[in-house]
Amino acid sequence: MIGAIDIGGTKTMTAVLSDTGNIIESRYFPTTSRDWRKHFQETADTFLDCAKPYLHEISGVGINVPGMADSARGLLIYAPHQNWKNIPVADYFRNALSISKIKVENDVNSCAIGEIVFGGGGTDFLWITISTGNGGAIVSNGKLIRGSTHCAGEFGHLKVEYTNPRICSCGQLGCLESQSSGTAIGQIYREKLVQDSSLLAQTKQAEAKDPDFQRDARGLSILAEGGSESAQEIFHTAGRYLGRAISYGVNIANPRRVYLGGGVAKSLLLLLPGIREELEKNAVPGASEVEIMETKLGYHAALLGAGALVLQETI
Amino acid sequence: MIGAIDIGGTKTMTAVLSDTGNIIESRYFPTTSRDWRKHFQETADTFLDCAKPYLHEISGVGINVPGMADSARGLLIYAPHQNWKNIPVADYFRNALSISKIKVENDVNSCAIGEIVFGGGGTDFLWITISTGNGGAIVSNGKLIRGSTHCAGEFGHLKVEYTNPRICSCGQLGCLESQSSGTAIGQIYREKLVQDSSLLAQTKQAEAKDPDFQRDARGLSILAEGGSESAQEIFHTAGRYLGRAISYGVNIANPRRVYLGGGVAKSLLLLLPGIREELEKNAVPGASEVEIMETKLGYHAALLGAGALVLQETI
Repeated sequence: MIGAIDIGGTKTMTAVLSDTGNIIESRYFPTTSRDWRKHFQETADTFLDCAKPYLHEISGVGINVPGMADSARGLLIYAPHQNWKNIPVADYFRNALSISKIKVENDVNSCAIGEIVFGGGGTDFLWITISTGNGGAIVSNGKLIRGSTHCAGEFGHLKVEYTNPRICSCGQLGCLESQSSGTAIGQIYREKLVQDSSLLAQTKQAEAKDPDFQRDARGLSILAEGGSESAQEIFHTAGRYLGRAISYGVNIANPRRVYLGGGVAKSLLLLLPGIREELEKNAVPGASEVEIMETKLGYHAALLGAGALVLQETI
Repeated sequence: MIGAIDIGGTKTMTAVLSDTGNIIESRYFPTTSRDWRKHFQETADTFLDCAKPYLHEISGVGINVPGMADSARGLLIYAPHQNWKNIPVADYFRNALSISKIKVENDVNSCAIGEIVFGGGGTDFLWITISTGNGGAIVSNGKLIRGSTHCAGEFGHLKVEYTNPRICSCGQLGCLESQSSGTAIGQIYREKLVQDSSLLAQTKQAEAKDPDFQRDARGLSILAEGGSESAQEIFHTAGRYLGRAISYGVNIANPRRVYLGGGVAKSLLLLLPGIREELEKNAVPGASEVEIMETKLGYHAALLGAGALVLQETI
């Protein structure tokens, strides 16, 4: 049995997993405190509460952090959203949980390791999230590429639009994250509503049918799947930007596969034509035949990834 | 002592090197034959001729091929220019030279390995050629990234211009190689001569002074170094495109350093402002601080790289 903790930007999850990746127990709570000691204390308490019946069977705990991690030293280097810097995560939880084996990793890197251990597997792949933002990880020849300052795999800030770029939250222009994240897709949808009366009519119809309908990427996917050409076009464009970023990744790292995770990856069928269109134009022939697929880890990719850290040590 | 063979697209070099990377003997001849057996026979004969006095001291021979290589099996997978496919390079030379230790690698990958062994060193870097075309290699955590189908590091075909792209020799549009190789810089120079009378006057002046002056990237660098603003502007633009490609590489692989090789890398000072300008705009802060420098291997980078293959086996 293994412990898994995913400290996310908005939510922190703790769980006990079987060695085959089944979630046995889990608890979660919002990541609200900016005081890391306070938040880590609550995390440790929540984990111990959910793991109590299994504590003596847990071989180790994997912990995801929402930022740059030095996994060799068990440190969180920098989490921009919380402004946490140089925090000894492994040491803290080793003490707080009285468990000696604690592994720490960036959350998207964990997803990639989780894919190896519990998901679709492979030795050469990219893992890209399409969620609030876009993150990425690269596994090459069975090894995670971490980079010289722990920030490899920054797919979200690859430039995919130079001429009519959107402003990214990082302050730069035309990053993948500004053109093709879940947040961006939702914004583009809402902007288009002003000028596209048929999309507006479809939206109002959906809202009348379902009071929980949201004018966001998820809502847009419902319209697209229902046949809205305007909605499909937004996903096609988002797919094209993803295809550009993926073309850089495949030309550089030549993976066999690309796994897409995060909420918007569920709309893979809507994105895929655009992705393939740009890959054809922009990737070298030997690299463009890469498989593109949704993660096999599902919604709990990051949590399963945290657990996988305990099992996959040599990566 | 080690043997080094660089089978290039236009020229084949053979040499004997000291274990510290000094060239003791060398011979070269043009790569003209498309018949690989004929060309390999001539290569073996040329190597044996230059290595004769040292044969009993040579511990192994490293061989560069101008295309995709499967270094583990000693195969040339595909050399597009010669249309050579699936050639057992190591086996051939093991027999022809009666030397058991034969290593085979793609030429730019060899440059990267050469940089580790005989050059500026490092464990996390990109190596990018700016010559007839643009090639690249990635070393991460001390290991060469080869890719799932032996074609990682295709920096030459990263898309750096979507809006006003030039046509690349690969048939695609806006590849780095079409915007910023030595060939492209020469073409852009000659195109600009038609509309830029001061550049034309500077060119004619240079031709009058030096009958060997060529209207190519090398010639343009002489004008730029002599103060021509038109020439400097072409290098600035070429630098910006290189900066875009490097920004993809640093966001993805987060290297500590970028080595530039090939003839045009000698004009690094002319390229660097453009490179830095785009890195500032397009790379994430943690990755953009990468050092950019000319290879420490000089003109014989590929040949030294071939020799390095014999010494650096675990990469």
